[in-house]
Amino acid sequence: MANKAITSRDVDFGQWYTDIVKAAHLADYSNVKGCTVFEPNGYAIWEKMQQVLDKMFKETGHKNVYMPVLIPENLMKKEGELINGFAPEVAWVTIGGQKILEEKMCIRPTSETLFSDYYASKVKSYRDLPLKYNQWCNVMRWEKETRPFLRSREFLWQEGHTVHSTSSEAEEETRNMLEIYKKFFEDYLAIPVITGKKTEKEKFAGAEYTLTVEALMYNGVALQSGTSHYFGQKFSKAYDIKFLNKENELEYAYQTSWGVTTRMIGALIMVHSDDDGLVLPPNIAPNQVVIIPIGDNDKVKVLSDKIYNDLKKSNISVYVDDSIKSPGFKFAESEVNGIPVRIEIGARDIENGNITVARRDTKEKYEVPVDTDIVNYVQTLMDSIQEDMYNKAKLRRDKMTFEAHNLKEVESIMDKQPGFIKAMWCGSEECELKMKEIRGTKSRCILENAKKIDDKCVVCGKHAKDLVVWGIQY
Amino acid sequence: MANKAITSRDVDFGQWYTDIVKAAHLADYSNVKGCTVFEPNGYAIWEKMQQVLDKMFKETGHKNVYMPVLIPENLMKKEGELINGFAPEVAWVTIGGQKILEEKMCIRPTSETLFSDYYASKVKSYRDLPLKYNQWCNVMRWEKETRPFLRSREFLWQEGHTVHSTSSEAEEETRNMLEIYKKFFEDYLAIPVITGKKTEKEKFAGAEYTLTVEALMYNGVALQSGTSHYFGQKFSKAYDIKFLNKENELEYAYQTSWGVTTRMIGALIMVHSDDDGLVLPPNIAPNQVVIIPIGDNDKVKVLSDKIYNDLKKSNISVYVDDSIKSPGFKFAESEVNGIPVRIEIGARDIENGNITVARRDTKEKYEVPVDTDIVNYVQTLMDSIQEDMYNKAKLRRDKMTFEAHNLKEVESIMDKQPGFIKAMWCGSEECELKMKEIRGTKSRCILENAKKIDDKCVVCGKHAKDLVVWGIQY
Repeated sequence: MANKAITSRDVDFGQWYTDIVKAAHLADYSNVKGCTVFEPNGYAIWEKMQQVLDKMFKETGHKNVYMPVLIPENLMKKEGELINGFAPEVAWVTIGGQKILEEKMCIRPTSETLFSDYYASKVKSYRDLPLKYNQWCNVMRWEKETRPFLRSREFLWQEGHTVHSTSSEAEEETRNMLEIYKKFFEDYLAIPVITGKKTEKEKFAGAEYTLTVEALMYNGVALQSGTSHYFGQKFSKAYDIKFLNKENELEYAYQTSWGVTTRMIGALIMVHSDDDGLVLPPNIAPNQVVIIPIGDNDKVKVLSDKIYNDLKKSNISVYVDDSIKSPGFKFAESEVNGIPVRIEIGARDIENGNITVARRDTKEKYEVPVDTDIVNYVQTLMDSIQEDMYNKAKLRRDKMTFEAHNLKEVESIMDKQPGFIKAMWCGSEECELKMKEIRGTKSRCILENAKKIDDKCVVCGKHAKDLVVWGIQY
Repeated sequence: MANKAITSRDVDFGQWYTDIVKAAHLADYSNVKGCTVFEPNGYAIWEKMQQVLDKMFKETGHKNVYMPVLIPENLMKKEGELINGFAPEVAWVTIGGQKILEEKMCIRPTSETLFSDYYASKVKSYRDLPLKYNQWCNVMRWEKETRPFLRSREFLWQEGHTVHSTSSEAEEETRNMLEIYKKFFEDYLAIPVITGKKTEKEKFAGAEYTLTVEALMYNGVALQSGTSHYFGQKFSKAYDIKFLNKENELEYAYQTSWGVTTRMIGALIMVHSDDDGLVLPPNIAPNQVVIIPIGDNDKVKVLSDKIYNDLKKSNISVYVDDSIKSPGFKFAESEVNGIPVRIEIGARDIENGNITVARRDTKEKYEVPVDTDIVNYVQTLMDSIQEDMYNKAKLRRDKMTFEAHNLKEVESIMDKQPGFIKAMWCGSEECELKMKEIRGTKSRCILENAKKIDDKCVVCGKHAKDLVVWGIQY
């Protein structure tokens, strides 16, 4: 029985998404145009994401810092490609303390400028390098449309910025961070991803190249989910970050940056959730287990408390819903909110020597003998859920990944069922633009070291060396 | 032997503070006027503060959310006192996406407006209440001077905003949060605090009353360190937050807000640090222990690793400094950075059956037999350090707390040695302003349930019922 507050995702995917965000209390539109409010359930997912990623960053030698939210215009303009890329979508502060500012300042759309300016003052010798810093913060880009988590003027993210003494070390960093993102998506979010290099047209403004993590949503639309940029010396030349190398010569430093955003919450929803509400993989769920005691009964209460304490001691995040609502209401609420495992404890069940365990992803229910090692049972069940959710998403992604050898095939695939299309590309922007005419199909990434499926470009038929994944993007 | 990069705090306290911030790599001035960069060592302290406080907030039923950084002018203006209080010091965004905005928006100086606007749309019935939300974010106030952590245009903080169905519940929340701040200052930061109520003149713009946590710095200057506000129905009336109460009547809700900021890092420095650098209490130190192996020796390495692993397993945060710098340099560095406990392991020491343990606060060194239970030893030592640092700070604070019965006494105290002055007050703003003429002495707070020390006002000599703590403020 589907939740009545939620439109079916097969009927209207856009409305379904909005309904899920509302019904699970993840976010709300605000009276600040273009911005959203992150409500407790949504923000808790972000906190869990931060916690996991932050640990991964720190284990690989990164440190957190915090740079100013405002960037003076002259600082913003030093790297030409960056300002050209971001100028149309920044917000400018022109008045401060009731005075018109001599120089306007923008709210950071990204912080390469500030990190580079800081590094310029700190880096003197190769002995100071590498510096591998990250910050968790808000950023602003003046979008025209608003979709909670997917597109809003303000969003939350992490931005790593590193500076190195050799190009090879910086390139290695760029790839390592891509691998961390991939691992995070696959092991925690249970979302299979494709990784590769962006085309020149799609790369980050100011980067030598951009590596990307691309995921496919339930409706076949692609979501750029995380990017890692290699800057070479572009920013170090613009911001004058020089160091004395081992040969005692001044050299411009090599930089990277990489980031993921609250958009990942949107990906979680669009890959896993269903018509009953949110479905969260146990490894990223802020609450992994809910215990619902049924009826006002001492035995029920004692057993609920025991299981709660046992799970808690084993670092499983669990809560007891002992509010005055009806059991049926609580079951539905735990489903809407995507709690991976629900334990129902009733007096009659205890008499029969059982409790009921329900998993959110498949809605299966199990009668579990009271004397079971419940911690072990729940842990094993959560491992299965995590694995099954990944496999289900991967199976769907694979089914929606097609090969095309000419534009007609691209058209016919995108008309029937959008998804990822693998097709050869000659490298020209002209051909990318022609692809875009087909329902906005864009290159997602160039697959590296991939087996070619053809020797000619899917668009122009000329010689092609790159296998590219294409898709319709959010 | 004092650190040469650091001015003595008894010679020039202001310069000493700046030197500590620089030498311990806590923060740096940036090319964004009025803003600072939080460097890794400084930001790590903030992360630790967040971690501890966030746990305390969640344990008392608060949930985290995130509201937009921008506030449209009309929304900001709804509560008159608030906008009057903050108008002179906000930054306005007037251009977004290359267009001049129809309505300018300010960067949040505080978020009562946004929370109230949100609550107005969510609160319908007493059953929805209380809502106890908090956010960790950046805020901006257009200050003229810049002092890292103490005063800067942008700073980081948490702001709790709650809404309740009765005034008594909201007042209880206001007091509970003050108690949490007090506990945090005393148990974690090892800073003794005075708590009480702000005078009408000093309370938060828009509050019915403000409770405050006040601390005294090494130089006798007072620092307002955390505030908790009771709003009554002021904001709910301005933002139309109404609910159906148990009698089924529409009633305006009761609200609170409370916050602490990165200023607490400044307090930590100014209460505990010395001429050799930062001194951190173990309960808030991001790194509690450093192990310094001396010489390239297998036995030293094995023992260092063992102690590192043992401490780490017991959740003591520890790192090994095995860089190529000289031991003396490493010792000095660990002192500048305020690492509470240093363990020195040398080949000769091991032969003698000892390792050396040094505590940062007193600089004492202990020879500790190699076969000691080192985890227990370090934990006990850290408990002593924590306690001793608190007691030392309290002793100094008490020594610098005076009583005054007339203006002459106030003058003579403030001329000799600024500190806290306890004195009776009649309640008039006029008398507060007269006090201010004496080196800027301001009321810090009204002590509640305090024994009166006199029955007449320290300024005008008229009848006085309130005992007030006064001080020179940062």
